[in-house]
Amino acid sequence: MDLEDGGGELPTGRYIVVKALEDGVTIMGLTRGRDTRSHHSERLDAGEVMVAQFTQLTAAIKIRGNAEILTDVGTVNSG
Amino acid sequence: MDLEDGGGELPTGRYIVVKALEDGVTIMGLTRGRDTRSHHSERLDAGEVMVAQFTQLTAAIKIRGNAEILTDVGTVNSG
Amino acid sequence: MDLEDGGGELPTGRYIVVKALEDGVTIMGLTRGRDTRSHHSERLDAGEVMVAQFTQLTAAIKIRGNAEILTDVGTVNSG
Amino acid sequence: MDLEDGGGELPTGRYIVVKALEDGVTIMGLTRGRDTRSHHSERLDAGEVMVAQFTQLTAAIKIRGNAEILTDVGTVNSG
Amino acid sequence: MDLEDGGGELPTGRYIVVKALEDGVTIMGLTRGRDTRSHHSERLDAGEVMVAQFTQLTAAIKIRGNAEILTDVGTVNSG
Amino acid sequence: MDLEDGGGELPTGRYIVVKALEDGVTIMGLTRGRDTRSHHSERLDAGEVMVAQFTQLTAAIKIRGNAEILTDVGTVNSG
Amino acid sequence: MDLEDGGGELPTGRYIVVKALEDGVTIMGLTRGRDTRSHHSERLDAGEVMVAQFTQLTAAIKIRGNAEILTDVGTVNSG
Amino acid sequence: MDLEDGGGELPTGRYIVVKALEDGVTIMGLTRGRDTRSHHSERLDAGEVMVAQFTQLTAAIKIRGNAEILTDVGTVNSG
Amino acid sequence: MDLEDGGGELPTGRYIVVKALEDGVTIMGLTRGRDTRSHHSERLDAGEVMVAQFTQLTAAIKIRGNAEILTDVGTVNSG
Amino acid sequence: MDLEDGGGELPTGRYIVVKALEDGVTIMGLTRGRDTRSHHSERLDAGEVMVAQFTQLTAAIKIRGNAEILTDVGTVNSG
Amino acid sequence: MDLEDGGGELPTGRYIVVKALEDGVTIMGLTRGRDTRSHHSERLDAGEVMVAQFTQLTAAIKIRGNAEILTDVGTVNSG
Amino acid sequence: MDLEDGGGELPTGRYIVVKALEDGVTIMGLTRGRDTRSHHSERLDAGEVMVAQFTQLTAAIKIRGNAEILTDVGTVNSG
Repeated sequence: MDLEDGGGELPTGRYIVVKALEDGVTIMGLTRGRDTRSHHSERLDAGEVMVAQFTQLTAAIKIRGNAEILTDVGTVNSG
Repeated sequence: MDLEDGGGELPTGRYIVVKALEDGVTIMGLTRGRDTRSHHSERLDAGEVMVAQFTQLTAAIKIRGNAEILTDVGTVNSG
Repeated sequence: MDLEDGGGELPTGRYIVVKALEDGVTIMGLTRGRDTRSHHSERLDAGEVMVAQFTQLTAAIKIRGNAEILTDVGTVNSG
Repeated sequence: MDLEDGGGELPTGRYIVVKALEDGVTIMGLTRGRDTRSHHSERLDAGEVMVAQFTQLTAAIKIRGNAEILTDVGTVNSG
Repeated sequence: MDLEDGGGELPTGRYIVVKALEDGVTIMGLTRGRDTRSHHSERLDAGEVMVAQFTQLTAAIKIRGNAEILTDVGTVNSG
Repeated sequence: MDLEDGGGELPTGRYIVVKALEDGVTIMGLTRGRDTRSHHSERLDAGEVMVAQFTQLTAAIKIRGNAEILTDVGTVNSG
Repeated sequence: MDLEDGGGELPTGRYIVVKALEDGVTIMGLTRGRDTRSHHSERLDAGEVMVAQFTQLTAAIKIRGNAEILTDVGTVNSG
Repeated sequence: MDLEDGGGELPTGRYIVVKALEDGVTIMGLTRGRDTRSHHSERLDAGEVMVAQFTQLTAAIKIRGNAEILTDVGTVNSG
Repeated sequence: MDLEDGGGELPTGRYIVVKALEDGVTIMGLTRGRDTRSHHSERLDAGEVMVAQFTQLTAAIKIRGNAEILTDVGTVNSG
Repeated sequence: MDLEDGGGELPTGRYIVVKALEDGVTIMGLTRGRDTRSHHSERLDAGEVMVAQFTQLTAAIKIRGNAEILTDVGTVNSG
Repeated sequence: MDLEDGGGELPTGRYIVVKALEDGVTIMGLTRGRDTRSHHSERLDAGEVMVAQFTQLTAAIKIRGNAEILTDVGTVNSG
Repeated sequence: MDLEDGGGELPTGRYIVVKALEDGVTIMGLTRGRDTRSHHSERLDAGEVMVAQFTQLTAAIKIRGNAEILTDVGTVNSG
């Protein structure tokens, strides 16, 4: 098992679903802890869907651009 | 695993969803414990969405500016 | 991990949502234990929203001023 | 962690919500154990709201004066 | 932590809500164990509300006088 | 902690609610174990309510006289 | 704690409610284990109610005579 | 605690309710394990009700004669 | 406790209910593990009911003949 | 306890119900692990019902021939 | 117990149900871990049904050909 | 058990269902941890269905091309 790839983490965390409604939607993962910064940024083109979990690294997810976002607490449209 | 980045924390905490309805919405994370202060502030432009978890550092989240906020106990609009 | 900032506490506690309906709404955290006193006071202006968890320090939350309060047991308006 | 302030107690206990409908509503915390006495008394003015948890010290809560009280088993009005 | 005041007991026990509908309602806590006796008696005036948990000491609660009683198994009026 | 008073027992056991509809309703606690006998008998007058938990000592509760009884499996009237 | 009286047993077991609709209803507790025999027999008169738990000793309960019986799987009338 | 009488077994097992609709209904407990045989047989007369749990000894229950049987998966009439 | 009779097994397993609608319904218990074979066969006459649990020995149950079968996933008629 | 017969496995696994609607329905248990092969095949005649659990050996079940199949995720007809 | 056949794995995992609506439907199990490849492929003819669990080896299941697929998150038709 | 193939991971993780509505739908698994990159890419032709779990390696799944996607938080169409 390779700890550098998050090994040992349970794959049961909550996830959200993001569907890009235009090109260039960005999904940023913000780090947990004292120094909250973007650790990863994913770019979606129109129609692409991303299903993303919170992880030991990611405590917040920021979506920029026109997208449909499905979560446990409801659905919103960004952009 | 890197403790400085919140390593070891379970990614199953509750989250809220904030959708900015105008430019300059700020989401502040307030620290847990004796000395409650803002430890991070994120600025959203109109249409941007942030999905934020409570963490070992964050015990309160303050939203300033016109936004739609989805939580386990209901939905409110700030601003 | 930094115990002075509540480190080690699970971020899964219950929270309430407070939306200020006028300037100067105050949210006071009252300490747990034998000596119940206000340990923190947060001031909200009209439209600002605060999502606050109970913590190892906070056993009661007092709201003063006109606000909408969402909780697990229902919604009330203060002020 | 500071045991004198209830440190180590889980912040997941049940809570009630009390909204004062007149000045001078008092919320008394009664101690657990052999010697049931009031250990803290909080005074609310009209419109103020208090969200209070049961704690390791508090086994009963007494409300005096005109207030709306929301609990897991229903809502009652005191006073 | 002070064991003489019930320290270490989990504040998550079930509770009942009693609203006095006349002066002089009494709520008696009866002890657990071989020797069932009243260990505490609380007097409520009309309009006062008491939210009381079962504890390590209290296995039965007796209400005398005209009151509204909310419990997990339903609501009854005493008196 | 005082074992002679049931110390250490969790206060989360199931309870029933008994409302006396006439004077002289008796609620008997019958002991657990090989030798089932009444270990306590409580007398209620008309209008009095008793909320009683099962305990480490009590495995059966017998009600005599006209009373309304609320339980997890439904409501019955005795007497 | 007194093991001869069932000490140490959790008071959270399932219970049934029996209301006698005539004099002389009998409720028999049958023992658990290899040698199933009646270990206790309780006689109810008309109108009396008994709330009885399964215990470490009791694996079956037999009711004779006209009674209303409330259980988790439904209600039946004996007799 | 007396192991020969099933001591130590949790009294929280599932149960079924059998109401005899004629004399001579028999309820047989069949043993668990390699050698499935009847270890106990109980005879009910018309109107008698038996509430029986599965135990460490009993893995199957057979009912002969006209009876109403209430279980977690529904109700059937035997005979 | 007698291990040869399945002692130590928790009596909380799932069960099915089989009601024979004709004479000669057979209920076969098939063994768990590498060598799946019938380890027990029970014969029911019309009207007889059997309530049978899965056990450490039984991983499949086969019913032959006209019977009504109630399970957690629905009801079917065999035969 | 006999490990060769699956001893020690908890009898609480999920099960499916298969009712053969014609002669010669076959139910095959496919092994878990690297080498997925049929380890057991059961033949049902029209009207026979089989209630089968997943086990430590069986990770997939294949049904051939006209049958009604009840599962946790719905009902389908094979054949 | 034979580890080469997945022994020790709990048979309580989620499953899906696949009903082939034409000959030659293939169900492929894709391996977990760094090297995602097909480790098993099962071919179904029209009308055959397969109930398949996720296992320690299988993290994804691919279905090719006209089939009805029942899962916890809904039903889809492939092909 | 072979750790290189994800052995020891519980097969109870959440899954999503993807049905390709055109040829060339791609499902990419993105790695967990500091270095979020695609570790596997699966190509589906029109009508093919893939049921994919989150794993110790996969924290996000990206879908490109016209597909129907079923998840715990709802259904979306990509492409």
